[in-house]
Amino acid sequence: MKSLRVNIPSREYNIYIENGLLNRCGELISEIFGGEKIAVVTDSNVFPLYANTVEESLEKSGFNVTVITVPAGEKSKSHKYLGFLYDELLKFGITRTDLIVALGGGVVGDLTGYAAASLLRGIPFVQIPTTLLAQVDSSVGGKVAVNLPQGKNLVGAFYQPKLVIIDPLCLKTLSPRVLSDGMAEVIKYGAIADEKLFETLENVRDTDDLFEKLGGIIYECCDIKRRVVEEDEHDTGGRMVLNFGHTFGHAIEKKYNYETYTHGEAVGAGMVMACGFGEKIGLTPQGTALRMTDILKKYDLPTEIEIGKDELTQAMAVDKKGDGSMISLILLGKIGRAVIKKFAKDEVRGI
Amino acid sequence: MKSLRVNIPSREYNIYIENGLLNRCGELISEIFGGEKIAVVTDSNVFPLYANTVEESLEKSGFNVTVITVPAGEKSKSHKYLGFLYDELLKFGITRTDLIVALGGGVVGDLTGYAAASLLRGIPFVQIPTTLLAQVDSSVGGKVAVNLPQGKNLVGAFYQPKLVIIDPLCLKTLSPRVLSDGMAEVIKYGAIADEKLFETLENVRDTDDLFEKLGGIIYECCDIKRRVVEEDEHDTGGRMVLNFGHTFGHAIEKKYNYETYTHGEAVGAGMVMACGFGEKIGLTPQGTALRMTDILKKYDLPTEIEIGKDELTQAMAVDKKGDGSMISLILLGKIGRAVIKKFAKDEVRGI
Repeated sequence: MKSLRVNIPSREYNIYIENGLLNRCGELISEIFGGEKIAVVTDSNVFPLYANTVEESLEKSGFNVTVITVPAGEKSKSHKYLGFLYDELLKFGITRTDLIVALGGGVVGDLTGYAAASLLRGIPFVQIPTTLLAQVDSSVGGKVAVNLPQGKNLVGAFYQPKLVIIDPLCLKTLSPRVLSDGMAEVIKYGAIADEKLFETLENVRDTDDLFEKLGGIIYECCDIKRRVVEEDEHDTGGRMVLNFGHTFGHAIEKKYNYETYTHGEAVGAGMVMACGFGEKIGLTPQGTALRMTDILKKYDLPTEIEIGKDELTQAMAVDKKGDGSMISLILLGKIGRAVIKKFAKDEVRGI
Repeated sequence: MKSLRVNIPSREYNIYIENGLLNRCGELISEIFGGEKIAVVTDSNVFPLYANTVEESLEKSGFNVTVITVPAGEKSKSHKYLGFLYDELLKFGITRTDLIVALGGGVVGDLTGYAAASLLRGIPFVQIPTTLLAQVDSSVGGKVAVNLPQGKNLVGAFYQPKLVIIDPLCLKTLSPRVLSDGMAEVIKYGAIADEKLFETLENVRDTDDLFEKLGGIIYECCDIKRRVVEEDEHDTGGRMVLNFGHTFGHAIEKKYNYETYTHGEAVGAGMVMACGFGEKIGLTPQGTALRMTDILKKYDLPTEIEIGKDELTQAMAVDKKGDGSMISLILLGKIGRAVIKKFAKDEVRGI
């Protein structure tokens, strides 16, 4: 039998974090992009706040810029708005040597990233995340997606940005609820990988103190994510630890139709459930769920959300992390150390 | 400014080529896949010929198999049938630890590969190409795509299969026209990278002689493609040489609505145009277009197809190989050596 072996190389990118970077995005993008055209995709919430700053900075650096706006909210993460983006980008005459910038939260990043990943088989893109959730989570690591009627993020890609530009000053315009939404993921990083970070979060005095420390906190979160993603880009093993609280969280989001609770709120309650589950089976030290509850309360996050066992196991069945008959759950060995454990579906039901 | 650098690793796969491999696909897939479920995607032409053989071989190896069939023809390479595949695959309960097999020609491989690339952000897939075109070209290198109303292959991915299984015996059931369709790409490989292969093709005596040599010829073609793809997976440089004849060919396909001529026929005529263009600007030795014409005739391929200059330049403007104001054309330094040359759009019009 004749046989050939194909071997293909890799890619890298930078994440920059600093107050005021939005005003310098043109300059930073010039370092990695020598083309002409840039399409900035944003949503109806972010457009009036930051589109102008970004557009001006890009134009000052000599780029030919268009801004495309989708409605704010999860409903835009659909094939409908994906088709809208394809149309607008092709009308702009975009080619593979041009650039797409995602300016916004997780929905804009995921939708834009997937359009960039798929149109012309991949157009370079840059993430400029404007929510805390996007800054510490969705903008880093290359997961992009749209939803299907059957579930969230069911169609997507692992498509790495060319650059991530994080300006913590953007977070000043977030509503307290959207800021808390992101804090749930920040708490998660502490819980799975960094007890010191968790303690820092426990010791934050007030919002001013939080904003003072936020640049450093975001850096720590991105650095944890970087390490995890480098080891497991395609989410087949170690990357699963990032989903601590998410299997339960997704079940909650689904039950409440992605409306009643934010992602972070659902994940927060999911982390308490995961701690409780871990305590029940003797893996997680007693008192961890309580410590988790306390820190969530501190950041105005719900700690308990009503959900039935049927809804839980059904949601797990279509979770991408499932591999058929077994379910992988992320539990805590202790605060600062996540453990991946496999369970038969019935076993989870029984606890 | 705080900054992090993310670096992500790569992937490899095998291509197996031998008469009769279809009967052994279960065994070969067992070597690279330890899961349970396999969804075989095929089309209405291939289903009655080979689906049974593949299904039996996979079941003999203990896999849980479903077969999903789409209508034969280019129209299936659409978001409509992509959505159909997503639905069917989710109904089958597919997860990221299962496998998708593309059994068919280029349309099946491209559509299935893109569904595999995007559903759940990527399900492993295996290519079992059943046409010559797919065996030497579309199944190797990871280019997968669907069409948009605005153009062919406008949405897609670079998504490498886990394995490519090539059984040249499949080609025995191809109509002469579909075999010729593939021969155009085979001739292309000789033209761009291997004068010896080109000469072998010139010296083939008849169809029997061709089939005797075909295993070796397919191997040479895949080996050329392997080398080119390894150096430039994402088609930003050297991989462009594979598009010799394709810029003109795509314009022809578009003008005739993807109906009158096959891809290979359009590419064949496109190669003659590219040779002629190269001769006019003094890059390609005189007589090359004639030699190309002779070999195309030998394999019953058209050598000239009517197309206007406006249609040519318009089609080039939306070609993925374009980068704005400039057009890259692949020309021949001689038979066996491709050269990438950039031209201003007006320059191409003038010749």
